[in-house]
Amino acid sequence: MKSNTRVSNAIIRRLPRYRRYLAELRNQGVKKISSNELSELIGYTASQIRQDLNTFGGFGQQGYGYSVDYLYKEINKILGLDREYKTVVVGFGNLGQAITNYTYYYKIGFNIIGLFDVNPRIIGLSINGVEVMDYSLLEDFVRDNGIDIGIICVNRENAQDVADTLVRGGVEGIWNFAPVDLDIPDDVAIENVHLSESLHTLSFQIRSKELEKANRK
Amino acid sequence: MKSNTRVSNAIIRRLPRYRRYLAELRNQGVKKISSNELSELIGYTASQIRQDLNTFGGFGQQGYGYSVDYLYKEINKILGLDREYKTVVVGFGNLGQAITNYTYYYKIGFNIIGLFDVNPRIIGLSINGVEVMDYSLLEDFVRDNGIDIGIICVNRENAQDVADTLVRGGVEGIWNFAPVDLDIPDDVAIENVHLSESLHTLSFQIRSKELEKANRK
Repeated sequence: MKSNTRVSNAIIRRLPRYRRYLAELRNQGVKKISSNELSELIGYTASQIRQDLNTFGGFGQQGYGYSVDYLYKEINKILGLDREYKTVVVGFGNLGQAITNYTYYYKIGFNIIGLFDVNPRIIGLSINGVEVMDYSLLEDFVRDNGIDIGIICVNRENAQDVADTLVRGGVEGIWNFAPVDLDIPDDVAIENVHLSESLHTLSFQIRSKELEKANRK
Repeated sequence: MKSNTRVSNAIIRRLPRYRRYLAELRNQGVKKISSNELSELIGYTASQIRQDLNTFGGFGQQGYGYSVDYLYKEINKILGLDREYKTVVVGFGNLGQAITNYTYYYKIGFNIIGLFDVNPRIIGLSINGVEVMDYSLLEDFVRDNGIDIGIICVNRENAQDVADTLVRGGVEGIWNFAPVDLDIPDDVAIENVHLSESLHTLSFQIRSKELEKANRK
């Protein structure tokens, strides 16, 4: 496999999507698939798909197509899903609870082993066998337990402080749900989920479609 | 203002971000700002910013910069945030509850007026004054109440059925949290939040940074 340290952002966004479709095919017992068939499923062109997969060395055989199982496993490796991650959730309000449950039920490989909040009424609660701890214990916990990923579910005002604490503790990555752009060292990975911006993109599209309809009349 | 029905996808993604920074500046009492100052805050180049804002007719004055309040309000209009939206949440499990609370507390203008589930133990519960109703009532409710947006928080297997029902009821847009690509008519807006794919993008970045570190040694 070629080194993937210089892969474009666009491919990185497409890979999890390939994985999702391959997981479905695998569950359906499909053994092999051509780039044309993949194209029909996923909606990218067949040449785009071949080009994407070639970036990582290419896994297809001329005249046969791709082995679904092999391609799925290789994409898992590329995505770093061939290992487990120790994670903590910081901020155990509605969103933190939802993300914790979501991750617990669906995300094999991302194990939440610590929950943190500042609210004394929440600290001490236990969810899926994990206790909610006082935020002041976060840095030591991250360091002592070799936490890989911190999930930030606090509000905008406190998010940078949480990020700094996670970084001091030594996390490799941050999954940020706070509506703010965090200042993070280059060697720590960051992925933002900005729900408000997603909702505003939707309202923009709704307005655009209304304008289109009005223009057509 | 120029028509915005043919605006690139990239600008649509940047506008909510402009809005977020302008909202902060406005809260801080900042009256005007230059494209260079905006550039330093947001991280896009000043020329990118001028180009983006020109797409919609341009709001700046040479030598003065932009009026923060005016620009904020104009971007709100472009994003369709100068009106209210009636929404329903379908699927009232952990994620549905979180999105409901999140929207209730933070998203002025997006009013949740109906909650739906199939689980008899959840139907009849009341949250923030809104009762959880039986899923079989969804289509009529959407039609009778002129619902604008349906928020899909069910699992992958049921998401297309929910989308079809929402479309039959007449929604203008769908905010989809199910990990599946939905088949939607062209005149209905769709915005996906694929949390798994976001998490896999994070693990990919973590792996890439580990490879970079290993290569440097």
